Amino acid sequence: MSTPPVRPQLDHLRWRDVEVVAYKREGAAPFRDVTRQVLFEDPALACQLRYFEVAPGGHTTLERHEHAHAVVIERGRGRVLVGDAIHDIAPHDLVHVPPMTWHQFVAGDDGPLGFLCMVNAKRDRPQLPTQEDLAQLRADPAIAALVRA
Amino acid sequence: MSTPPVRPQLDHLRWRDVEVVAYKREGAAPFRDVTRQVLFEDPALACQLRYFEVAPGGHTTLERHEHAHAVVIERGRGRVLVGDAIHDIAPHDLVHVPPMTWHQFVAGDDGPLGFLCMVNAKRDRPQLPTQEDLAQLRADPAIAALVRA
Repeated sequence: MSTPPVRPQLDHLRWRDVEVVAYKREGAAPFRDVTRQVLFEDPALACQLRYFEVAPGGHTTLERHEHAHAVVIERGRGRVLVGDAIHDIAPHDLVHVPPMTWHQFVAGDDGPLGFLCMVNAKRDRPQLPTQEDLAQLRADPAIAALVRA
Repeated sequence: MSTPPVRPQLDHLRWRDVEVVAYKREGAAPFRDVTRQVLFEDPALACQLRYFEVAPGGHTTLERHEHAHAVVIERGRGRVLVGDAIHDIAPHDLVHVPPMTWHQFVAGDDGPLGFLCMVNAKRDRPQLPTQEDLAQLRADPAIAALVRA
């Protein structure tokens, strides 16, 4: 089906003709309470734009890959690990995840964390950390306290 | 300069390390009161993500091109022409502009209209309407009342 020219927002960050789906296949990777909506996916566009929402206390998968992420926070607060640094995030903050950089989004406890994420349409599969990768990441106590894997 | 991992929003829809620039070179094409901020531009990303803001009563250029646009409204209200239809737009509405489709964003009078716009990094130059194109578009009275060219 071709994309309609305008898809109005119905509920807050829910849209006409956009399905709310699971973030990933259950059991495929560690994550908790995340939904995914593909907003734009078009042969004429070299990227996709998705909207992810992480429920309070939930988190995306700790992973890395050759493709990059361009993220705009749209609702809520939380923290993000990018490489070896943890950043607080709030609405409209911009997050850039370079290639092959460990990253994980963690929602705060007081509301969902929602963000737009642009990625190349053609992209590699995410890599999960090995036990050795995890041990290296957790050598930093702040990262050890944040990451869920 | 490489993109920092996190660029916080400073003022509303203004960011650290993101310059507010003119929409287009003055005189290059008809437009009124539009600013542009390039949020993500990265060799690892096949698209760019920009934020445009149209002041009350202002408008983007009426144009078409081979590349597509994927737009998320972020602030304010207005109307958009896509092809031969006019749509009201409000925050978080999604706008898809297919290849070679005339389009123009017009802000309402009560506040700025701001939107994210994803485009292919490699893209063709926009085409402006000829007098004949304009006459065809203006054959529809609603479009004649909206478009600025």
